[in-house]
Amino acid sequence: MSYNSFGQLFRLTTWGESHGPAIGCVVDGCPPRIRLSEADIQPWLDRRRPGQSRFTSQRAEPDQVRILSGVFEGETTGTPIALVIENVDQRSKDYSDIRDRFRPGHADLTYELKYGARDYRGGGRASARETAMRVAAGAVARRVLGEAVRIRGALIQIGPHAIARARWDWNEVDANPFFCPDPETVPVWEDYLGSIRKAGSSVGAIIEVVAEGAPPGLGAPVYGKLDADLASGLMSINAVKGVEIGAGFASATLRGEENADEMRMREGEVEFLTNHAGGILGGISSGAPIVARFAVKPTSSILVPRRSVDRFGSEIDVMTKGRHDPCVGIRAVPVGEAMMALVLADHLLRHRAQNPDAPDRPRLPRN
Amino acid sequence: MSYNSFGQLFRLTTWGESHGPAIGCVVDGCPPRIRLSEADIQPWLDRRRPGQSRFTSQRAEPDQVRILSGVFEGETTGTPIALVIENVDQRSKDYSDIRDRFRPGHADLTYELKYGARDYRGGGRASARETAMRVAAGAVARRVLGEAVRIRGALIQIGPHAIARARWDWNEVDANPFFCPDPETVPVWEDYLGSIRKAGSSVGAIIEVVAEGAPPGLGAPVYGKLDADLASGLMSINAVKGVEIGAGFASATLRGEENADEMRMREGEVEFLTNHAGGILGGISSGAPIVARFAVKPTSSILVPRRSVDRFGSEIDVMTKGRHDPCVGIRAVPVGEAMMALVLADHLLRHRAQNPDAPDRPRLPRN
Amino acid sequence: MSYNSFGQLFRLTTWGESHGPAIGCVVDGCPPRIRLSEADIQPWLDRRRPGQSRFTSQRAEPDQVRILSGVFEGETTGTPIALVIENVDQRSKDYSDIRDRFRPGHADLTYELKYGARDYRGGGRASARETAMRVAAGAVARRVLGEAVRIRGALIQIGPHAIARARWDWNEVDANPFFCPDPETVPVWEDYLGSIRKAGSSVGAIIEVVAEGAPPGLGAPVYGKLDADLASGLMSINAVKGVEIGAGFASATLRGEENADEMRMREGEVEFLTNHAGGILGGISSGAPIVARFAVKPTSSILVPRRSVDRFGSEIDVMTKGRHDPCVGIRAVPVGEAMMALVLADHLLRHRAQNPDAPDRPRLPRN
Amino acid sequence: MSYNSFGQLFRLTTWGESHGPAIGCVVDGCPPRIRLSEADIQPWLDRRRPGQSRFTSQRAEPDQVRILSGVFEGETTGTPIALVIENVDQRSKDYSDIRDRFRPGHADLTYELKYGARDYRGGGRASARETAMRVAAGAVARRVLGEAVRIRGALIQIGPHAIARARWDWNEVDANPFFCPDPETVPVWEDYLGSIRKAGSSVGAIIEVVAEGAPPGLGAPVYGKLDADLASGLMSINAVKGVEIGAGFASATLRGEENADEMRMREGEVEFLTNHAGGILGGISSGAPIVARFAVKPTSSILVPRRSVDRFGSEIDVMTKGRHDPCVGIRAVPVGEAMMALVLADHLLRHRAQNPDAPDRPRLPRN
Repeated sequence: MSYNSFGQLFRLTTWGESHGPAIGCVVDGCPPRIRLSEADIQPWLDRRRPGQSRFTSQRAEPDQVRILSGVFEGETTGTPIALVIENVDQRSKDYSDIRDRFRPGHADLTYELKYGARDYRGGGRASARETAMRVAAGAVARRVLGEAVRIRGALIQIGPHAIARARWDWNEVDANPFFCPDPETVPVWEDYLGSIRKAGSSVGAIIEVVAEGAPPGLGAPVYGKLDADLASGLMSINAVKGVEIGAGFASATLRGEENADEMRMREGEVEFLTNHAGGILGGISSGAPIVARFAVKPTSSILVPRRSVDRFGSEIDVMTKGRHDPCVGIRAVPVGEAMMALVLADHLLRHRAQNPDAPDRPRLPRN
Repeated sequence: MSYNSFGQLFRLTTWGESHGPAIGCVVDGCPPRIRLSEADIQPWLDRRRPGQSRFTSQRAEPDQVRILSGVFEGETTGTPIALVIENVDQRSKDYSDIRDRFRPGHADLTYELKYGARDYRGGGRASARETAMRVAAGAVARRVLGEAVRIRGALIQIGPHAIARARWDWNEVDANPFFCPDPETVPVWEDYLGSIRKAGSSVGAIIEVVAEGAPPGLGAPVYGKLDADLASGLMSINAVKGVEIGAGFASATLRGEENADEMRMREGEVEFLTNHAGGILGGISSGAPIVARFAVKPTSSILVPRRSVDRFGSEIDVMTKGRHDPCVGIRAVPVGEAMMALVLADHLLRHRAQNPDAPDRPRLPRN
Repeated sequence: MSYNSFGQLFRLTTWGESHGPAIGCVVDGCPPRIRLSEADIQPWLDRRRPGQSRFTSQRAEPDQVRILSGVFEGETTGTPIALVIENVDQRSKDYSDIRDRFRPGHADLTYELKYGARDYRGGGRASARETAMRVAAGAVARRVLGEAVRIRGALIQIGPHAIARARWDWNEVDANPFFCPDPETVPVWEDYLGSIRKAGSSVGAIIEVVAEGAPPGLGAPVYGKLDADLASGLMSINAVKGVEIGAGFASATLRGEENADEMRMREGEVEFLTNHAGGILGGISSGAPIVARFAVKPTSSILVPRRSVDRFGSEIDVMTKGRHDPCVGIRAVPVGEAMMALVLADHLLRHRAQNPDAPDRPRLPRN
Repeated sequence: MSYNSFGQLFRLTTWGESHGPAIGCVVDGCPPRIRLSEADIQPWLDRRRPGQSRFTSQRAEPDQVRILSGVFEGETTGTPIALVIENVDQRSKDYSDIRDRFRPGHADLTYELKYGARDYRGGGRASARETAMRVAAGAVARRVLGEAVRIRGALIQIGPHAIARARWDWNEVDANPFFCPDPETVPVWEDYLGSIRKAGSSVGAIIEVVAEGAPPGLGAPVYGKLDADLASGLMSINAVKGVEIGAGFASATLRGEENADEMRMREGEVEFLTNHAGGILGGISSGAPIVARFAVKPTSSILVPRRSVDRFGSEIDVMTKGRHDPCVGIRAVPVGEAMMALVLADHLLRHRAQNPDAPDRPRLPRN
């Protein structure tokens, strides 16, 4: 029920504002006796860290994570794991210009309408800074899932420029500042995003996350469906406006015989000949790769003046000064991976609870 | 945590299988002293009922709802409302052909992998019959929201044929068997779906649901976001593969200055000049219409033979016999409306809890 | 969060009023492939059924349970199990005398203060009739726990008359109308309760419930403690005013060396020499018998006039007519057992989720 | 569902071990625009702080609380409030003697049986240190409840020595090191506890907590009862073995006409002539003072050798060295108050959600 918690059995609770002293989270329900240290978490945070290229925010945050509880002698104990990251680069400054103004496309207005108050410094709780804790907790979730489950994400579209799926190469993803799996698209995006940045504008993006090796049977009918929880988790990321599984919206245009994935046997296990379902049937994982995609809108913190209003009901023009992120979708890639890991770890525990003798590998139940 | 419950404070729990004696639900947390009778619920069920045109399943179910608790002297009492619908047309028959076979694109395989058992008659728990209880509970949610909140849905695409949004007319929606808001698209769909039906095939669809009049402030950062709960609720509907809010996936292609909705004052209230955000900013409703869209895949119960396997690991061909639903997306329209109503009613209660003096109408907090 | 649900993973949701058409429940999260039929549930309901002796309510309810979902071919399927019992003996009558009056010691006033409305017929939702569904769901929980876990309850005190623990004989419990384990106390209670009944009065009681064979490791620090959930479950039973575990309130008078249960090894397993802890240390089961006790107040539906007020603020005298239950604590015995079973089944699933290789029998972790 | 969270809408999540770098909590769901600073929390922590008399643990912890999020410009913002206290006096030492040994009466064994691992330093997560965060969160809950609700606790029994209720004086409670409301009992306890301390032993205690001014209508049938949540909250405190409401276990010995609290009108409001119900009827607050009592067992960390076993299955004798707390019940008084405050604040929010026009003061619904 908690507004700032995600998951049921493997459960993340985050706290902290962009310009407070720190941000942090509590990971509750983690199984005991899993080896865990800051070194398991930090590399994932480093991938999300701002200021690593000219295409992302220039905020300089080392994002050094500390484990404050739940780990003893290098292993989890089953008690809550508290993680904390100090805010270093808050840039104390004069906020009088944004204190009373609502930036179009931002949560400024809705926080004010809901709570009658908000921490306006750097977006407060609405800042993408919160997603650092998702990535940190996602790193713990990966440890719970184990080596057999591989979760990877990639940016597949910036503005109108989509990759060519035929050229998809996972090895390319970490070799460019965009998490782009298609090397030929990288220079296209560099040019395009460079011009967007110079124009003081921004643009949206689409991210794809794939989990391979997840056991079948994760998810549960009818409101605990794996895809329903993935949809919730991905939609809760800042600026996300759409989520799809497998063929997604394109499945609306398909005929039944095109869409349904046929099955054959291969080495004693069921094999799907296609994966329009994105690895989920009836809300339950089938053993095929789990494929989710989500759309990130362009940030509205741009250098172009826009019409708005202020807290006193005056009509004004608003223009964001300072740091500027031409494509917030880039840094959403590690965040999307983290949400996938969190959902899968949670459902792995839920599945075990109800099905203690659940199979680890896809197999037919009673031969 | 319950797998078969939806919502936190206004909470739906459903039960029942396609071919069991009945289906039902419990609506818990409903405020007291709201007038409610079967007559408030039945009309919404009638809209979803199968067998009303040749384009939907021919199962003959009157879907007569009974209220078994929680209502006294015509008013809710604040205690749980139990609703039940008897299954009438279960068509007891020989299921030996499907008992051991996994239909491609169905939950047959995944239920078997998860539970090692399933009620295979008519899809059991995975049947779309479960959605009748969503519609019934959605009718109660509408009573909680009151007259000021209007929730309407429409089918906007079948297969490759989308409506023309310029011709959108809400009055047309209930005047054709497709919930189509564009009268000129109706004959196109009739022809197209007729041919799909004759071919024993099926096709997907896209539904749009709009809620007008919802108060601002609903939803909460960061995992209780209104759009995250909408995404979960809509994705949990059978056969849904994608959900988007406002501009959705199209926002990926927009620039920041195109996407952010500008604001002006109008009669003392904030007015948005566009609605790319779909009425939700930072996970909180803004007072603008809440717009969600979801994609429904084509049903895989088709008369075309497909390759599959059975429970014994043999490779087989599967073909569905009997009732056939060329476009399950049609009947998803009232279900989508119901999920919108359930999410809004739940968040209305949640909002009241944390913000007892929350405004009912959009207004600036401190003039 | 649901007000009418109990448990997290093995989850009971009840509905229904004393004089509505039926009462029922949904049991969600039950593991699949457990054999279950009405015959597994009915005997437990029969123990709780009213009208079986002159010492309990004379309401004539056969309490025939029906399973409406979640069971297929004699086995659970993992989907929600709906149970329903029709109300047969509602005795439609003139309620004008109680409609507007608040009986001292009843929930009449507080329902009215909370909801501004109530179903006053037979106590409505506040009726002990709701506990029938606890017993029904408890029977399902017993099936989940398996034969190795034995849960038994007994009445150990009526008014001032406590049993002699030295004479405790479980075989006696079902041999008298009081669930009394001490045969010599039975005639004492018969005399005493007979006089209470003739006086139109009522009296309280104390019940003890013991679970043997529950695996160690159930429960979790610090708000998921096994004893905290037992306390919540037992306190939620109608008329219960106190709950204690093991030595309970008496432990306040003990010294540390008297209270702490010493341990020795016996056949490779840890054995406790005493059980002041009632089988729970740090909120986690130790493998020793789990012992809980709870106090039931005397019903306030008595034939003795008492001072009260009505809904119009007039001072009145109230006297209950009709059926009269001199000791509601008697029928609380099977209800207490059911709550123990529900708590243990829930924690068994929760434990499995976090500790997939948890031991079934008490054993030292690393010899 | 989270094991380390308490409450539904006003929700506390705690983390941290006795000898880790810090302990902390997150308070989620707090209403916005409530004035809050460390100065509102610190005084309550100071009451619980160890080392304040020779009758409590000599651990020297300043317990300085810091607010890390959720408060801006001196007011809550509606976002999660993170509180943290550094552990100062961990006394790094050689733990080899307790690492492998199970102290009788402690959670040592059960943590090991459940998790196969534990942070044995100072009791780890099972340490009473966790209760500091309950007190801190309870201070926030008091701010939510407002000045009209007064929550006070007192120690009413140590070992066999109970206070005389006729001498109860709330003003005495903070004037002695025992939170004792009866000045004549103070010297009795001083003598008695002095001898217990010198003997290296310990003793149990009983605490009473009273909430005055809470609005009627808090709590909900049937599993969200106010007393059920109080029972859970109080039983979750370390070393608590029993909880009772109002007359509690004594109500078992009463007759119906003695136990039911009669009502009269007084200045337009309902007045109860007695309070055996402890302010709760049918699980809902009546407007009368809410009275809860709980029993704390004697700590088993005593200087008297006791028989036990170690992790290798050897039979050993165990004796606790170092700091020694002759009556842990003393410091449970502020913790019990905090749990009462947390339960009431949570139910206040839950009540508002379902009953937006709920009355603040006890009143008859429709005159």
